[in-house]
Amino acid sequence: MKHARVEIDGVIEQVTCEDSNPDNYQVTTRDGRQYSEHEVTWLAPQSGVIIGLALNYADHAAELDFDKPESPILFVKSPSSTNAHNQKAYRPDHVNYMHYESELVVVIGKSASKVKAEDAMEYVEGYTVCNELTVRDYLEDFSRPPIKVKNVDSFGPLGPWVVDRDDIADPHKLAVRTWVNGELRQEGNTKDLIFNIPELIEYISSFMTLQPGDMIATGTPKGLSDVVPGDEIIVEVENVGRLRTWLVSEEEYYSQAS
Amino acid sequence: MKHARVEIDGVIEQVTCEDSNPDNYQVTTRDGRQYSEHEVTWLAPQSGVIIGLALNYADHAAELDFDKPESPILFVKSPSSTNAHNQKAYRPDHVNYMHYESELVVVIGKSASKVKAEDAMEYVEGYTVCNELTVRDYLEDFSRPPIKVKNVDSFGPLGPWVVDRDDIADPHKLAVRTWVNGELRQEGNTKDLIFNIPELIEYISSFMTLQPGDMIATGTPKGLSDVVPGDEIIVEVENVGRLRTWLVSEEEYYSQAS
Repeated sequence: MKHARVEIDGVIEQVTCEDSNPDNYQVTTRDGRQYSEHEVTWLAPQSGVIIGLALNYADHAAELDFDKPESPILFVKSPSSTNAHNQKAYRPDHVNYMHYESELVVVIGKSASKVKAEDAMEYVEGYTVCNELTVRDYLEDFSRPPIKVKNVDSFGPLGPWVVDRDDIADPHKLAVRTWVNGELRQEGNTKDLIFNIPELIEYISSFMTLQPGDMIATGTPKGLSDVVPGDEIIVEVENVGRLRTWLVSEEEYYSQAS
Repeated sequence: MKHARVEIDGVIEQVTCEDSNPDNYQVTTRDGRQYSEHEVTWLAPQSGVIIGLALNYADHAAELDFDKPESPILFVKSPSSTNAHNQKAYRPDHVNYMHYESELVVVIGKSASKVKAEDAMEYVEGYTVCNELTVRDYLEDFSRPPIKVKNVDSFGPLGPWVVDRDDIADPHKLAVRTWVNGELRQEGNTKDLIFNIPELIEYISSFMTLQPGDMIATGTPKGLSDVVPGDEIIVEVENVGRLRTWLVSEEEYYSQAS
């Protein structure tokens, strides 16, 4: 089952989703009303702490001229950057290179402290998708805390929904793709994760208790390219979801927000 | 005025605090009941996003053999590590070096986007204190995202209270100190901040909207040393507050927590 939050006529509704037509998702409210994708305003899944992974696909590390890391390189994302499906994000003025990153996101379902890898999947509630928008200009050193790189307002598209863990037969065998204006630009597979989901949960929960709603964005594969205002960016994780973002200029973004 | 949250007989109360006796704070509930410091359980001030600063005092950067940074080095702290006054924190098993860091924390009072330094103080609600407990072993590279270094469960003592902005005549002229078992180990002053409070608010709000309750931990001066289970650690920012932490072993911490 796919679970999302949407706004319909000013009311926030918990809905279930159906994606048999990938170009027009259907949502059903708890009291059975049905809407198509474009009749509702999508909200990001509610999240606790969002942990990101840098360089967790070997081909992507190589693309950036880095060695494969020996332990997971984590960062915490600010919840203030979270953004939803079918919303706008912006490209800051005066940057030279901004890219998308299609990622599988693991949603934690129960409090996890000192969990062993072999037990880790019991702590997973489900999965969602994020587009980890990134300004490469701000990346002086890949391992420097990437706060400005990753946490610009609007840079955290997440969703459209959370799909239940048991609906995904094998989370380590999912295509990860990005299309820009309909052109396939990024393609990888979660089988190539350097640190897989149980290993990540074991590592993180060894020092930091994970709570229900916390999320782990597992990193992105090779295939980055520059994106500009006017672009439609779709990131997809196979069987999990497709998440659309419209890129606008900084001026347009803040003129609409205010 | 100093504002805190404490638990009294199982009920969470908003209180005001009085520190004329620094060894025994007095708290007053909204309905006028008075308690001494050790009759209540202190809770950390409620926080949104907590942003930390690495290397924001030149003497501390020199102590770690780093150059003064050219722009603020930020990281996001996980709210799961937050801890309160008079609580226990733990030293993980098998680490070689763990230290305290006494820091002035700025509490944001209203939504701040693209704020100029000259207007920045209007966005400050008040100040609190944190002890940014740190495991040096986990620090492979000071600029690597310091998630494991800083976000171990219990590593974020914060409080005891928030003091109103206007109660502090000059936040850039405050002694910052740490005592371990009564011995003064760290001493600095916020006059030596490399990036001061208005500069930090201007920098962060240039790309990331700060919300009420978000906090900026402004960094720590020189004077770090190893601490071990059994130690009492007191961090103090002059006129803001003194925050006590009891350091225990990993085993003791988790045996009591469960």
